[in-house]
Amino acid sequence: MDKRLKEQLSFALEIDKEKNILRQTHLSCNGRRENDAEHAWHMAIMAYIFREYSNEKIDIGKVMLMCLIHDIVEIDAGDTYAYDKESLKTQKAREDAAKERIFSLLPEDQKAELGALFDEFEENETAEAKFAHTMDNLQPIILNNSNGGADWIAHGVSAKDVYGRQSKSREGSEKLFEVIDGIIKDNIKKGSLK
Amino acid sequence: MDKRLKEQLSFALEIDKEKNILRQTHLSCNGRRENDAEHAWHMAIMAYIFREYSNEKIDIGKVMLMCLIHDIVEIDAGDTYAYDKESLKTQKAREDAAKERIFSLLPEDQKAELGALFDEFEENETAEAKFAHTMDNLQPIILNNSNGGADWIAHGVSAKDVYGRQSKSREGSEKLFEVIDGIIKDNIKKGSLK
Repeated sequence: MDKRLKEQLSFALEIDKEKNILRQTHLSCNGRRENDAEHAWHMAIMAYIFREYSNEKIDIGKVMLMCLIHDIVEIDAGDTYAYDKESLKTQKAREDAAKERIFSLLPEDQKAELGALFDEFEENETAEAKFAHTMDNLQPIILNNSNGGADWIAHGVSAKDVYGRQSKSREGSEKLFEVIDGIIKDNIKKGSLK
Repeated sequence: MDKRLKEQLSFALEIDKEKNILRQTHLSCNGRRENDAEHAWHMAIMAYIFREYSNEKIDIGKVMLMCLIHDIVEIDAGDTYAYDKESLKTQKAREDAAKERIFSLLPEDQKAELGALFDEFEENETAEAKFAHTMDNLQPIILNNSNGGADWIAHGVSAKDVYGRQSKSREGSEKLFEVIDGIIKDNIKKGSLK
């Protein structure tokens, strides 16, 4: 088998490990904790379904791929909970090292391509990156809301924290930020957000 | 909130249930059973990585979306193991009913669009559907091979059964069928395939 194909197969097998990286979000119906692969799958389909609400014109194929790969670095770096201030400080260094190791399994051209797409997501400047971030934020909020805000209650998260994170969602979609805003207000009222 | 957005949000929450549909395949490193959402995520990334090996020119964004949604019907219909001859008889009727219920949560235009994409996958006539099927077959074979063919051993699967199913893979990619063929031959030699 040629070297290129062997490298691609090795990457394909390696990313299987993303299914073992648990997030703080729980599945709907008060289910178990969600993993990164499930989250990425959910985000990519939501991006397609909700694409009409992007503030800017987007290449939806690119957004879906960005959603699918954006958490691969967590195979090494682990999931960093959005409201864990200590872990957030070391997140970038951990994820940079992981990006180098994991994408290096691929042939050079694909390493460069997927690495650039990952960076584009992280830099959050293009229309595609902004919309992908809206999905990254909307997806767990929908699950958490369906569970009565249980994840926020468990971690003692405040409305201020959530609004801080969700300001990014607004850059991707004003319309979907309205949905998020409604959910936050509703959870403040119910007492599940401080 | 308008009716359209409400319907889309309802679909987005409903598909969360796909994460509870277990397949017969186990994760690499002899892990737990894989679920449909993880499988779809893995297939979609693999489609992108391996797209150069498609026999025919493909719209890769369409292939990825097809991979992502192709198992949504299993929320109601359950997973049908590729080598379970009894369940295969009723699979189509169960999946048709599921398709109608689940995609009907969406606005009419999106129900029609995703329903047509699901049908295209099932009919397996277009270049995109054929390549998506190659991914549907290659993804579990890579995991199973990494576990020494444990899933085949557990179900007493024969090489003839596997070749029967994998004939579809060849229609999507001659090159990736060679990989599959190598894995099958290797597992026959090792005794993990009858």
